Amino acid sequence: MDVRYVNPFVKSVSNVFKTMLHTDVTVGKPYLKTPHCDRPDVSGVIGLSGDVTGVVVLGFSKNVAIAVAEKFVGTSLTVDHPDFADALGELANMVAGGAKASFEGINASISLPSVIVGENHEVIKSKANPSLVIPCDSPMGHFTVEVAMKVEAQVAVGAAS
Amino acid sequence: MDVRYVNPFVKSVSNVFKTMLHTDVTVGKPYLKTPHCDRPDVSGVIGLSGDVTGVVVLGFSKNVAIAVAEKFVGTSLTVDHPDFADALGELANMVAGGAKASFEGINASISLPSVIVGENHEVIKSKANPSLVIPCDSPMGHFTVEVAMKVEAQVAVGAAS
Repeated sequence: MDVRYVNPFVKSVSNVFKTMLHTDVTVGKPYLKTPHCDRPDVSGVIGLSGDVTGVVVLGFSKNVAIAVAEKFVGTSLTVDHPDFADALGELANMVAGGAKASFEGINASISLPSVIVGENHEVIKSKANPSLVIPCDSPMGHFTVEVAMKVEAQVAVGAAS
Repeated sequence: MDVRYVNPFVKSVSNVFKTMLHTDVTVGKPYLKTPHCDRPDVSGVIGLSGDVTGVVVLGFSKNVAIAVAEKFVGTSLTVDHPDFADALGELANMVAGGAKASFEGINASISLPSVIVGENHEVIKSKANPSLVIPCDSPMGHFTVEVAMKVEAQVAVGAAS
């Protein structure tokens, strides 16, 4: 994945948490995802398509997901409450939407988000498009933003010229 | 979800299994997904965006997922083999791609697929966009194709006129 497209996600996750959760996020050095290393309990998954094809995954442990969703909606939540998944899906939507808005010279649109709930699940992307993992720390706990993205050939050539 | 967009998915899943797996799929009557009713072990998730915004999820039990992936690649596979997730991601890609190709008057593009592996996980979509579940039976076993889709207002008006 082209590293030029990582920074928009770093900025977007910081901005969304600052604006919507009134919380600072400390972003660590992004690293290449290795198989079977990250097993979240709750994931927010959203697709990107257009001049790019991609997928963005916010991964949380159960306790961090609950704390983040509660902060987002402003009330206590259980994992089974419909607002729990809606909050985390909306968060994935905002992080991906904010990032795509600052891709230069690239038109991308985002899909509907899905929220996966299941202890220690894995979210696996194609071998052909490895994911970068952006590690994030917040007062609610640690979480990750994973991005796999492929820029269509003609756009990549145009951007490089 | 507008039922006019269900048939392309019914046709596409039958066509993909026939073409790629040389297998007939019996498609049952689609039904509205209710919370916490379907808990697959393996899911292929792919987003749609453009004139529509959506998400498509193929949901399998572990044994059916292995049988389908093995039939797709033509060799024995374990869940941890990289080709396992690649096969199911590619299957989700083909089912969504085949369906969008037959949306009349609608431009849509598809994201990169993700494959979720985790016993009894849930894939939850937004309350605002309920999913239709298309139940499918095959010689490898039962699986589901879930579709949540929202047609952008100006396109929906155009299509209705």
